[in-house]
Amino acid sequence: MQLNDTETAFMEYVNKMEAFNEALQLIYWDMRTGAPKKGVKQRSEVIGVLSNEYFQMSTSEEMAAFIANLSVNKGELAEITQSTLAECKKIYDRNKKIPPKEYKEYVILQAHAENIWEEAREKSDFGMFKPYLQRLVDFNKKFIEYWGYKGNKYNTLLDLYEPEVTVETIDKEFEILKEAIIPLISKISDYGSHPETEFLYQPFPKAKQKDFSLKVLEQMGYDFDAGRLDETVHPFATGLNPGDVRITTRYYDDDWRMAVFGTIHEGGHALYEQNISSQLIGTPLCNGTSMGIHESQSLFYENILARDRSFWEYNFDVLKEYAGSQFDHVSLDEFYRAINKAESSLIRIESDNLTYSLHIIIRYEIEKGLFNNEISVEELPKIWNDKYEQYLGIRPRNDAEGVLQDVHWAAGNFGYFPSYALGYMYAAQIKNAMIKDITDYDRLLKTGNLKPIKEWLTKHIHHFGKTKKPLELIKEATGEGLSAKYLTDYLVKKYSSLYNLNSEI
Amino acid sequence: MQLNDTETAFMEYVNKMEAFNEALQLIYWDMRTGAPKKGVKQRSEVIGVLSNEYFQMSTSEEMAAFIANLSVNKGELAEITQSTLAECKKIYDRNKKIPPKEYKEYVILQAHAENIWEEAREKSDFGMFKPYLQRLVDFNKKFIEYWGYKGNKYNTLLDLYEPEVTVETIDKEFEILKEAIIPLISKISDYGSHPETEFLYQPFPKAKQKDFSLKVLEQMGYDFDAGRLDETVHPFATGLNPGDVRITTRYYDDDWRMAVFGTIHEGGHALYEQNISSQLIGTPLCNGTSMGIHESQSLFYENILARDRSFWEYNFDVLKEYAGSQFDHVSLDEFYRAINKAESSLIRIESDNLTYSLHIIIRYEIEKGLFNNEISVEELPKIWNDKYEQYLGIRPRNDAEGVLQDVHWAAGNFGYFPSYALGYMYAAQIKNAMIKDITDYDRLLKTGNLKPIKEWLTKHIHHFGKTKKPLELIKEATGEGLSAKYLTDYLVKKYSSLYNLNSEI
Repeated sequence: MQLNDTETAFMEYVNKMEAFNEALQLIYWDMRTGAPKKGVKQRSEVIGVLSNEYFQMSTSEEMAAFIANLSVNKGELAEITQSTLAECKKIYDRNKKIPPKEYKEYVILQAHAENIWEEAREKSDFGMFKPYLQRLVDFNKKFIEYWGYKGNKYNTLLDLYEPEVTVETIDKEFEILKEAIIPLISKISDYGSHPETEFLYQPFPKAKQKDFSLKVLEQMGYDFDAGRLDETVHPFATGLNPGDVRITTRYYDDDWRMAVFGTIHEGGHALYEQNISSQLIGTPLCNGTSMGIHESQSLFYENILARDRSFWEYNFDVLKEYAGSQFDHVSLDEFYRAINKAESSLIRIESDNLTYSLHIIIRYEIEKGLFNNEISVEELPKIWNDKYEQYLGIRPRNDAEGVLQDVHWAAGNFGYFPSYALGYMYAAQIKNAMIKDITDYDRLLKTGNLKPIKEWLTKHIHHFGKTKKPLELIKEATGEGLSAKYLTDYLVKKYSSLYNLNSEI
Repeated sequence: MQLNDTETAFMEYVNKMEAFNEALQLIYWDMRTGAPKKGVKQRSEVIGVLSNEYFQMSTSEEMAAFIANLSVNKGELAEITQSTLAECKKIYDRNKKIPPKEYKEYVILQAHAENIWEEAREKSDFGMFKPYLQRLVDFNKKFIEYWGYKGNKYNTLLDLYEPEVTVETIDKEFEILKEAIIPLISKISDYGSHPETEFLYQPFPKAKQKDFSLKVLEQMGYDFDAGRLDETVHPFATGLNPGDVRITTRYYDDDWRMAVFGTIHEGGHALYEQNISSQLIGTPLCNGTSMGIHESQSLFYENILARDRSFWEYNFDVLKEYAGSQFDHVSLDEFYRAINKAESSLIRIESDNLTYSLHIIIRYEIEKGLFNNEISVEELPKIWNDKYEQYLGIRPRNDAEGVLQDVHWAAGNFGYFPSYALGYMYAAQIKNAMIKDITDYDRLLKTGNLKPIKEWLTKHIHHFGKTKKPLELIKEATGEGLSAKYLTDYLVKKYSSLYNLNSEI
């Protein structure tokens, strides 16, 4: 075949893979939003067939031939083909290097481990889960050997979620975070004046929570012709293609924040997927470039923008229209302080905007230790609890509120946790760059005019999909490499002021 | 390969085809129930890939080899394999006999024709649509030659929707229907005492219509753990697998009957699909056996059961709980007569339970004439209008309320219409057989206890899926071949009484 013909055939092949993938994503969405439970068994067969089809295509001899033939004259290919080829090669290598028999065993182990983990967490019994976790860790250690590694072994796992971000980088930035946040938390705990929050926890009809959430999504620039909002137990966003990016949220009667901040968070993810260049549709590049960059978009909107006083200067009155009387005697400042309350707690997903990163850092340090043989699975509960005491000043009383709280390890997702804190750092750094261009950022928030913010993000982040790696993207968007400085500056300034610690810092 | 191995490999191959099919069905459901419009373009690509995959598998050399190898020792195969093989062979032959180039042209023509038809109907201009219809007819005439035919050429098209039911059979039964219904309609029109219906058309909140519809579905035995009810412009039922059979309905503020009878209709279809033997899951046999038998289930519930006085003896009070005051001064008899009003009208989908079959018979006679070269496309509007005048006593004033009203021909679905009337005949015949076993049928309706009825239908109809052909199924369920007698008896008795025509008949 001519190079041109091979290129066309390759892109058609990839389009087909992505079609299977989109069908799969729709099935997952459907299963989480209300598929009848008796149909699930057969639906799992369907998932099996489609996943297998995708996997086979990603590792087929045809794919190997495409990679070999197109790599020779890479420079003559269209840019999108080049990036697609690189992505396909990465997936090919990753999938080909694990012996199929071992991979199958691992998939079965994962399924078992999740079930056991659920029971172990319920019983708060790490001992039950330990042998499964040990095997999951051992498998991943073997995978690291198969896949190879540069520098630290754990880098190989990090690369699954945050390509090209290494232990060296993370160690340095997480150290900066710890140095700023740990003393700040202890000062708040010792001297801080704590906000009143009782008025937050009042009955707020679900339908009204939804209406307000929709208002905010609209302000953010979420395109309702390219998405929809549904209700699920665990909120999520899923991008089937840029014209169909769906989000879900959950409603708590006595805590409207769950739905509203949850919707804003998923809305941040959704804006990313809705605004990826349409040229990338049908390729594996039509996705967020990494977990961390994805999280930067959700956390920018949820933690930074939607917890800004200026945002509520506009939206507090809007909220009151939907809320009934619970805020009648609450000032904007009281409200603002309440939704920004910081307090050490044991459960990551319930933690506040200040302490959140420490939860992540603890998990990162443990994973890094595990894969460098410096920590054994046996010791995990103790090390976990020690670190919570050291960084957050509180100690879990049992495994359920300690080492067993997250599903990630049971699912074999080692290397995933750091993305959350990376995302937060990226978010603060991105905001810092954004306000150099959008000099009236505060005024926009105060007038509910958030579209220019979305446009800036689309231009500098969303648009590129997976064509740029995270650090390259951050460098181009902000003018420098990843830096924890912007997040620490933001947190120190914000929380010192909120807790009247100015004199102390 | 050993026969056993070949059989296993064949069933795995078929399972995979059905997995693609289930994914496709879910995508269609999703597109009709709220998929964001901007995602549709890419979703169509996904449909293209999955449909093509299914089509390729159904006509592959591998499939040809399965058919050849397994046919040799057919008798030694499991029964399900035998039926699956026969079904696959049928599809293989059908798909293989049309030259791919012609089929592709035909698919493109279909898409164009539907668009043109929509515009032509809007403008009430048959001339616009005529050349497209001519080409669709010509294509189907060619297909008949490719596929071959026994007896009447039109039999080949009928067989697509109602396997093994022929012109000979239909001519005979439709004649019986005409002889009973046409004079009955004219008597009603001349001497009948017409019911009051104004109280039907009162505002009825949508949410309440839905609640009442759900009540009735529950009575029918619809399994909500294996289904769900959504809202769409065009109601439908879709069986993804027996554990996931979804229905939709639509709500008219001033006519609750649309939602309620629509839900019951789709519920009838859904009971069929929910109760197919689980042994057939993953095979092409896990479907209703024909359009006509499917329609017999929906029409039995919608037209026969839910328009029975006994049904409302129980449900009229239930309806009133949801309805507000519109029925406060309406007696059960007045209500019963109102929902059974019969009156000739021009539009098939708005027609009543008595005149409905005539709309179908007209279309059948026209299609039969077209494919036997006795009617030309040119003459259609005139022939259509003449037949309406002759059978129903009213004449369309234009093409929109005449020959252009249905989408079926624009979609190339010739041979489909008869299933509607066949379904109605089957339904009356099935009821007649059922009440021999369920001797307290009336009492069950009067007490809202409809489950035994569903169980009877499951045992005699649903359970078999596609393992029995329609006439075989009807013979076994009712003890005789298709007979219009039960429907005509039912209609004559019911409408003579409703319209006080007893002395006239």
